[in-house]
Amino acid sequence: MPLNALALVCTLKPSPAESSTEVLAREVLAELADHGVTCDLVRVVDHDVRFGVSTDEGDGDGWPAIRRKVLDADIVLLATPIWMGQPASVAKMTLERLDAELSETDAGGRPTMYGKVAMVAVVGNEDGAHRVVADTLQALNDVGLSAAAAAGTYWVGEAMGSTDYKDLDKRPEKTRAATRTAAVNAVHLARLLRDAAYPKS
Amino acid sequence: MPLNALALVCTLKPSPAESSTEVLAREVLAELADHGVTCDLVRVVDHDVRFGVSTDEGDGDGWPAIRRKVLDADIVLLATPIWMGQPASVAKMTLERLDAELSETDAGGRPTMYGKVAMVAVVGNEDGAHRVVADTLQALNDVGLSAAAAAGTYWVGEAMGSTDYKDLDKRPEKTRAATRTAAVNAVHLARLLRDAAYPKS
Amino acid sequence: MPLNALALVCTLKPSPAESSTEVLAREVLAELADHGVTCDLVRVVDHDVRFGVSTDEGDGDGWPAIRRKVLDADIVLLATPIWMGQPASVAKMTLERLDAELSETDAGGRPTMYGKVAMVAVVGNEDGAHRVVADTLQALNDVGLSAAAAAGTYWVGEAMGSTDYKDLDKRPEKTRAATRTAAVNAVHLARLLRDAAYPKS
Amino acid sequence: MPLNALALVCTLKPSPAESSTEVLAREVLAELADHGVTCDLVRVVDHDVRFGVSTDEGDGDGWPAIRRKVLDADIVLLATPIWMGQPASVAKMTLERLDAELSETDAGGRPTMYGKVAMVAVVGNEDGAHRVVADTLQALNDVGLSAAAAAGTYWVGEAMGSTDYKDLDKRPEKTRAATRTAAVNAVHLARLLRDAAYPKS
Repeated sequence: MPLNALALVCTLKPSPAESSTEVLAREVLAELADHGVTCDLVRVVDHDVRFGVSTDEGDGDGWPAIRRKVLDADIVLLATPIWMGQPASVAKMTLERLDAELSETDAGGRPTMYGKVAMVAVVGNEDGAHRVVADTLQALNDVGLSAAAAAGTYWVGEAMGSTDYKDLDKRPEKTRAATRTAAVNAVHLARLLRDAAYPKS
Repeated sequence: MPLNALALVCTLKPSPAESSTEVLAREVLAELADHGVTCDLVRVVDHDVRFGVSTDEGDGDGWPAIRRKVLDADIVLLATPIWMGQPASVAKMTLERLDAELSETDAGGRPTMYGKVAMVAVVGNEDGAHRVVADTLQALNDVGLSAAAAAGTYWVGEAMGSTDYKDLDKRPEKTRAATRTAAVNAVHLARLLRDAAYPKS
Repeated sequence: MPLNALALVCTLKPSPAESSTEVLAREVLAELADHGVTCDLVRVVDHDVRFGVSTDEGDGDGWPAIRRKVLDADIVLLATPIWMGQPASVAKMTLERLDAELSETDAGGRPTMYGKVAMVAVVGNEDGAHRVVADTLQALNDVGLSAAAAAGTYWVGEAMGSTDYKDLDKRPEKTRAATRTAAVNAVHLARLLRDAAYPKS
Repeated sequence: MPLNALALVCTLKPSPAESSTEVLAREVLAELADHGVTCDLVRVVDHDVRFGVSTDEGDGDGWPAIRRKVLDADIVLLATPIWMGQPASVAKMTLERLDAELSETDAGGRPTMYGKVAMVAVVGNEDGAHRVVADTLQALNDVGLSAAAAAGTYWVGEAMGSTDYKDLDKRPEKTRAATRTAAVNAVHLARLLRDAAYPKS
């Protein structure tokens, strides 16, 4: 059975606006697909996701439908732009919704996020990628996702620059290499964890 | 003319739910009022604020009305809960809207946020206050607010605890002292900057 | 063959001063030992480790001896106190030395840190654990270590408190549980990665 | 009486190695000198500063001599390189030593750091400036320094780049402008605080 990957794209801009974050997320998914992974992508801001820390905030909340995709995924890619050197608010909202999983268990009594592998993709004009990887990996790991070696890929331009990733003439080779490595490692780890789940502790 | 202070309360919960963040914000405002400051409070999530980095995202966006209050304030208090050890998504959304001020100037040609003093109030069950102060002060300072000595006040409980600030039997004396100091210093700095604006650079 | 774990204890205080950080590190090692892991501990500040980003800064540098232990370990525990809400300088110095591994490969041509599993243990009087986990996990993951689900354990007291972990009357049950979970998961992941190394990318 | 500024340069490399951090620090000092400020610079790693959180760790500790310069300064510039997207260990060590000032008061009974203005200068090959500004400003503000509008200046190159600031053919105009603005604002605030100290709270 193939692995499933889900990209949670956390741009602030609703579709159909072009998004550098979505461009990089799709590059990650393309690498994963090359390894036989079935891929899906959700642009979170297009759905009516509510602020909160429960699995369902009710009243038309868009999160439960996204959550079902998360539960089905073996690899969860959080893709976010950088604003003010920090993760986007939409990424923070998404992580807060995942915080609810701390008290959720699967049919086997394990935390719902155990067995899933986290990846992070970050784009910005100029600065902030490491810190965004730090913040998002910590939150995802807190709720039970694992991180394979070198789990993040990113692009940022020179200090105080304004070029967008989506407008680059060609894909930067270093980002491409980081994307490839992150994908290969995530696939390896996701397969290991599917075959051998964490024991109950 | 009295100084104006505005509290931007960034709880995830709409009114009328009780909010620990709002409780601490009101304590800060009470200290400021003791020094003759005129105070106002906005619970951001009650308004239809849109994700974005412009001053007005259009189509019923609730931010422009809040922005007018920010422009009128001498002291801006960002009050936020901690989720996953990090600032709440509503605080991040609010900061992203303030990011637009980087390219806005006042009648005298100065950046709109110059002359304003930032304060931060943070509450959580257990951990994360210093980092939230770091993240929010950096963003507020980036767009032009100044920080008086010891600009943050906070409360968190013991590791992995679940007590809420609003449910404490009595106000913790150390938080109360930090609140008082932050308020006294912010008032002092706001008065200095009102009387003597930053020169154009 | 048993797994090897190495604790890098990053207290600012040289031996024989008591260290809360070392107390928590030893609790993690005890859990690992219960699962058959061979454990070692280095108090970094006791050795003459130099500032730098190479594998050997020469002239009596204490790092190369510690580095050999890191290379032999399957599980690397970074244990650090919190100062000003942030990781201790000794932890940062240690991570900077590990940064050199980005360009080092093993006999099989793989990055030297691939195959190793990271754990983090954090103690402070009052605040900062999540952020310290974020900072340290990001850096360790950057250089190639993997993180099992819930890779961090910590203790902090109430806001602006001054109690030390080592002086608590009894071990806090929640920290104990987090330690146990982190250990079980790290052992599981380290065994998987020993049996099935990441492919070359 | 002219204002005094002190640059604490936190490169990992002892003199006489060239340091990009020192280059940017000297550019900040040159701007300050243009406004009549008397400037001094300390390369922390050249002195035998010990790990710790007291004002004097004894036994030849290099910090007390540096501390005297800090006490005499109206403007304190913390200049640090970025390693792994984070502040350098030498910067963290320096901040930890300043943490001792939380319990120190001057002749007038005020915290020793009140009245001082913080500036931050950050250089890296590729990423991390905002986060370093956040971490350092928070710590400096905690111990009582104030931050004028836009208190940080920085340079970083494109993602995963390796160019050093000191090797750039020409100074980047945006960094130069940020340096100038930060200097003008810091001088203005330092003068205000010298003439009108924070009241006791």
